[in-house]
Amino acid sequence: MIAPARALWLVLSHCSAQPVEQVALDEALGRVAGRAVRADRDMPPADRSTMDGYAVRANDLRSVPRELKMIGEVAAGSGARPRVGPGECVRILTGANVPPGADAVAMVESTEEVSPKVIRFCAKVAPGENILCRGSVARRGQVVLDKGTRLHPQQIAVCASVGADPVSVFARPRVGVLCTGQELVSGSGRAARPAQRDSNGPALRAALLATGLARCEVLGVVEDDPKALRRVLRAALRDCDALLTVGGVSAGKYDFVPRALTELGCREVFHGVAMKPGKPTLFALGPKGQLVFGLPGNPLSALTAFHEFVAPALRKMSGMTAPPPTRFLVRLCKRAVSDCADRTLFMPAQLLFDPSDGAPTAIPIEMRGSADVVAGGQCDGVVVLPEARTYKAGSVVEFHLWSPMA
Amino acid sequence: MIAPARALWLVLSHCSAQPVEQVALDEALGRVAGRAVRADRDMPPADRSTMDGYAVRANDLRSVPRELKMIGEVAAGSGARPRVGPGECVRILTGANVPPGADAVAMVESTEEVSPKVIRFCAKVAPGENILCRGSVARRGQVVLDKGTRLHPQQIAVCASVGADPVSVFARPRVGVLCTGQELVSGSGRAARPAQRDSNGPALRAALLATGLARCEVLGVVEDDPKALRRVLRAALRDCDALLTVGGVSAGKYDFVPRALTELGCREVFHGVAMKPGKPTLFALGPKGQLVFGLPGNPLSALTAFHEFVAPALRKMSGMTAPPPTRFLVRLCKRAVSDCADRTLFMPAQLLFDPSDGAPTAIPIEMRGSADVVAGGQCDGVVVLPEARTYKAGSVVEFHLWSPMA
Repeated sequence: MIAPARALWLVLSHCSAQPVEQVALDEALGRVAGRAVRADRDMPPADRSTMDGYAVRANDLRSVPRELKMIGEVAAGSGARPRVGPGECVRILTGANVPPGADAVAMVESTEEVSPKVIRFCAKVAPGENILCRGSVARRGQVVLDKGTRLHPQQIAVCASVGADPVSVFARPRVGVLCTGQELVSGSGRAARPAQRDSNGPALRAALLATGLARCEVLGVVEDDPKALRRVLRAALRDCDALLTVGGVSAGKYDFVPRALTELGCREVFHGVAMKPGKPTLFALGPKGQLVFGLPGNPLSALTAFHEFVAPALRKMSGMTAPPPTRFLVRLCKRAVSDCADRTLFMPAQLLFDPSDGAPTAIPIEMRGSADVVAGGQCDGVVVLPEARTYKAGSVVEFHLWSPMA
Repeated sequence: MIAPARALWLVLSHCSAQPVEQVALDEALGRVAGRAVRADRDMPPADRSTMDGYAVRANDLRSVPRELKMIGEVAAGSGARPRVGPGECVRILTGANVPPGADAVAMVESTEEVSPKVIRFCAKVAPGENILCRGSVARRGQVVLDKGTRLHPQQIAVCASVGADPVSVFARPRVGVLCTGQELVSGSGRAARPAQRDSNGPALRAALLATGLARCEVLGVVEDDPKALRRVLRAALRDCDALLTVGGVSAGKYDFVPRALTELGCREVFHGVAMKPGKPTLFALGPKGQLVFGLPGNPLSALTAFHEFVAPALRKMSGMTAPPPTRFLVRLCKRAVSDCADRTLFMPAQLLFDPSDGAPTAIPIEMRGSADVVAGGQCDGVVVLPEARTYKAGSVVEFHLWSPMA
């Protein structure tokens, strides 16, 4: 058994960023920029008004009130370019290009319309006031999104505004999910014999999809037969960049996965992690460097090992340079007890932010072992309890987030 | 102008949960349970071993070491039911049903195989040890997921394990996105005339998709013509449960949206919020109670108003009973200045958790007004600065999260 931190380090040291591909911008949500995105022109491309009002020569308003002659109007996108001379002004709308001659915009709120062609100004303006200068948001060629940035809606806005469509993103690895166990029934519907429904297949498929960082290939359930297992694994290693097997990795008589992987030319990196749940977790490399994760078959064990090892691997493969903060310190709002002498306990917990001071706070969830899928269904993530002792209410421990927070 | 909190209250008071529909479990990720999910049988359905080892009568191991006769084997899912008599044991694998007669499982680690049929036990076991009793995780009929729970992977696992497939979920509202402005060019590609690319359409579509709580209907860009606008709005009100218009809500001459909505029988609830950006935000109700949000046309303004009003509305319509913590207090890691005398400033910021004490910490991002889409592209959300003053480094302010954290 190795420590969870050592296991994670080993996993990450075998991951590298995926190749870069091009996708249409409207398919790019949640992808990661594979290349810096640059402004394809000055932003804004001309001096722009940030207000509705009048384009003026600031010098004309050195003393106010002052009346100026209104000689025209410009709206955003309009082609009109009336020149503003001394004693003149032009009505201007937010986002419109500042017409030649003018060097400031007076807000409409500080003006009065004396007649359709005469405007009275009641406040001075400084040169440049209410104008967003050409190139002040970004110069042509300037990087507006770094390589490795994840494309959330606000980054999609940046891409759209510089015409980055299609956009270069890191490819998503193809990840196979294969459940083992003769007791399992593929398909989770009521039609399935309820004795041993496969909840791991649906849960891990969902966990892969929820990351947004992988394409998921469901390989179904294979029974505990070495030959059948080898056949399915061989095909999976051919087609996938990474593979999750579920079950069959303990030391039991029917735990055929480690041997089958070895026979197929996989190299075991570790098998056994000092964690609860998740102790029999296995990590191996396929003949072409594919990542192979052997996850334990208990539902909570499989999801715990997924979030400890698979999700970080996917984030590294995604090319993300600043992964979201999924691991941070929290305060326990009630005591939590670990009785694991030689393993780190990952205990399901709910997360909340203390309304008085903002401190992240965890409510540990009572559970009946790693088969307690129901307790898992109440958690937002896990608290990490490395020692066999009582952690009092108020103790600060690490929290690993499972569910997205927005 | 009304206060942002009042505006949010008004929006939420007009939202109600969507009707319930059935979806296949493998389509249910991110949906919200429309009905309590119940165990369709005891979980586990029989007494189960939580270990690899031997099913025994605890009474037989009152003094150890003791040798017992091995009379058979049970694996998970196997039909074998060998009865364990006094002086006997049965090899058992994790997850297998405990055979009749046995009342405890001894871990394989505390035994030795004397011969294929004789096992030596070196440790006592208590009755019930290493057994997960029938119904101890959940009794048949017991609620295992509350109505209003969002279906993340760990909840998909729960549904799968009780055969909840299809599963009842709240329907997702159909939300139309309509951009206005003659200066805008639909389509964001390099082919489009770069003068005024529409970044709001792609960004708001992405923002809707990212919530996972809406079906998005992109209605494109309509030019600043009252008749064309009315035609498109009428169709949108017919087809959509909610509608986002972008641009055309200021007091400018080309801001036709409020009047067009009134002409189509919409009732304005508010128009103008004391916030920066986002001041001209409008909220109205359609003839059938549809929610209509008039968002301002600047990219950051539109996204700010989306996260302040639209996203909370979608969460309420989704039927979620415990929305994720998207609003919490943070510490400013450097000073932030608001010069908005009568409005709350929403300033883009990055979020991190202090590695020393876990405190959520925000780094405000310098920006050049609400047209600064590039600054927005660096943020994880916004800090809320209600007063016109300098907020020193270390001040505690509210943070509103935009990007998912896992």
